[in-house]
Amino acid sequence: MPYELYYWDGIQGRGEFVRLALEEAGVDYVDVTRRPDGMAAMMKLLKGRTEPHIPFAPPFLKDGDLIVPHVANILLYLGPKLGLAPKSEPLRFIANGLQLTITDFVAEVHDTHHPVSTNQYYEDQKEAAKQRSADFNVHRIPKFMGYFERVLELNPEGSKHAIGNELSYVDLSLFQVIEGLHYAFPRATKDFSRHYPALIALHDAIEQRPNIKNYLASERRLDFNESGIFRHYPELDQDA
Amino acid sequence: MPYELYYWDGIQGRGEFVRLALEEAGVDYVDVTRRPDGMAAMMKLLKGRTEPHIPFAPPFLKDGDLIVPHVANILLYLGPKLGLAPKSEPLRFIANGLQLTITDFVAEVHDTHHPVSTNQYYEDQKEAAKQRSADFNVHRIPKFMGYFERVLELNPEGSKHAIGNELSYVDLSLFQVIEGLHYAFPRATKDFSRHYPALIALHDAIEQRPNIKNYLASERRLDFNESGIFRHYPELDQDA
Repeated sequence: MPYELYYWDGIQGRGEFVRLALEEAGVDYVDVTRRPDGMAAMMKLLKGRTEPHIPFAPPFLKDGDLIVPHVANILLYLGPKLGLAPKSEPLRFIANGLQLTITDFVAEVHDTHHPVSTNQYYEDQKEAAKQRSADFNVHRIPKFMGYFERVLELNPEGSKHAIGNELSYVDLSLFQVIEGLHYAFPRATKDFSRHYPALIALHDAIEQRPNIKNYLASERRLDFNESGIFRHYPELDQDA
Repeated sequence: MPYELYYWDGIQGRGEFVRLALEEAGVDYVDVTRRPDGMAAMMKLLKGRTEPHIPFAPPFLKDGDLIVPHVANILLYLGPKLGLAPKSEPLRFIANGLQLTITDFVAEVHDTHHPVSTNQYYEDQKEAAKQRSADFNVHRIPKFMGYFERVLELNPEGSKHAIGNELSYVDLSLFQVIEGLHYAFPRATKDFSRHYPALIALHDAIEQRPNIKNYLASERRLDFNESGIFRHYPELDQDA
């Protein structure tokens, strides 16, 4: 039975970190909500009382009877099965730690446009969004990106990968973060290749991997848009 | 060698979720920054270039040469060693998923008093904090608490534990979340026992466990305060 990914239709969002791993591995999977009754199936599962262990929110992965929620948890689960996790047990905790730092970074990206409430429109929290984004551009992007650049530099096996000398799901997620930041904040990211050369080299190498290249050109890859996590609002972008 | 926990001194904060697991298990550990040179040791490790895999931020756990960052990751690592994780492999992903939902909830608690920037004082973002807290009290507390109550209700092995019929680190973390919410938001939480009876019963049972009771009465348990995650600012609290 193929893996079933449940996530909001119409956006890359958090689901994209899982899609990139599934696509790189070339395994069969169903992106459930892109099917005609998919949204109804997802809501039924979230609201139902039949599953022993319900998720709080999408994305979640269904593998047979098991439902695995949260991006980092899904990747922890899938990584070894897809050949995208370190083989050493201790290094799997390193990978998970890096993925959780990516999770935090992505949550901060989301909060640039929704600093007050996820229940209100962006337009209704624009002033707080401008304040939060200014801080994000000036302090948070350099802090997180500088950290990940250092992770690559300090990797004892070379700076081509986040962990060890093989591709992992963490590398794929770093690619996606850089893609998203470029889309949302073209001004704040315009010197990225000068400031974060190892990360940009990693990004460019991922982009050229055959399965990823094929995926990015396919209709399975949705465009970034202003319903997702990475949104381009010019008023929130500024030079770093 | 005892486990070494690295976290900011003077607050319960995120470190407390780890401390509760270590205390319940009754194992030997060092709370590094409470020692005279602890803060210097932590900063050296964070800023240094000698470790192959550096954490982004505290808390992190050092077990011999391995450094495990992020609360959920630390508990994933320690859980089986401390007898506080489900024995079944699939259920460990359920536990990790629940812990990651707790992580998200705790981040939202933090952002009630820091919605704009972690680099600015609360006083400088008070207006946005009031807006965010109003939304948090009315929408987010019931959403998260209602979810965890449902998790207990739907547990096929009974509602005494989050997973299966044995204590896990998730139960301990739920205890801490409820403690923290009661401290920070006495008005918003005053009907908790009526709205979330299974969760409150779990909280009260944890509080009576001998090792936890002992810990809570010791000087190792710091008081909640206005430097931590759960802060009591009366102007941010309101009836649910």
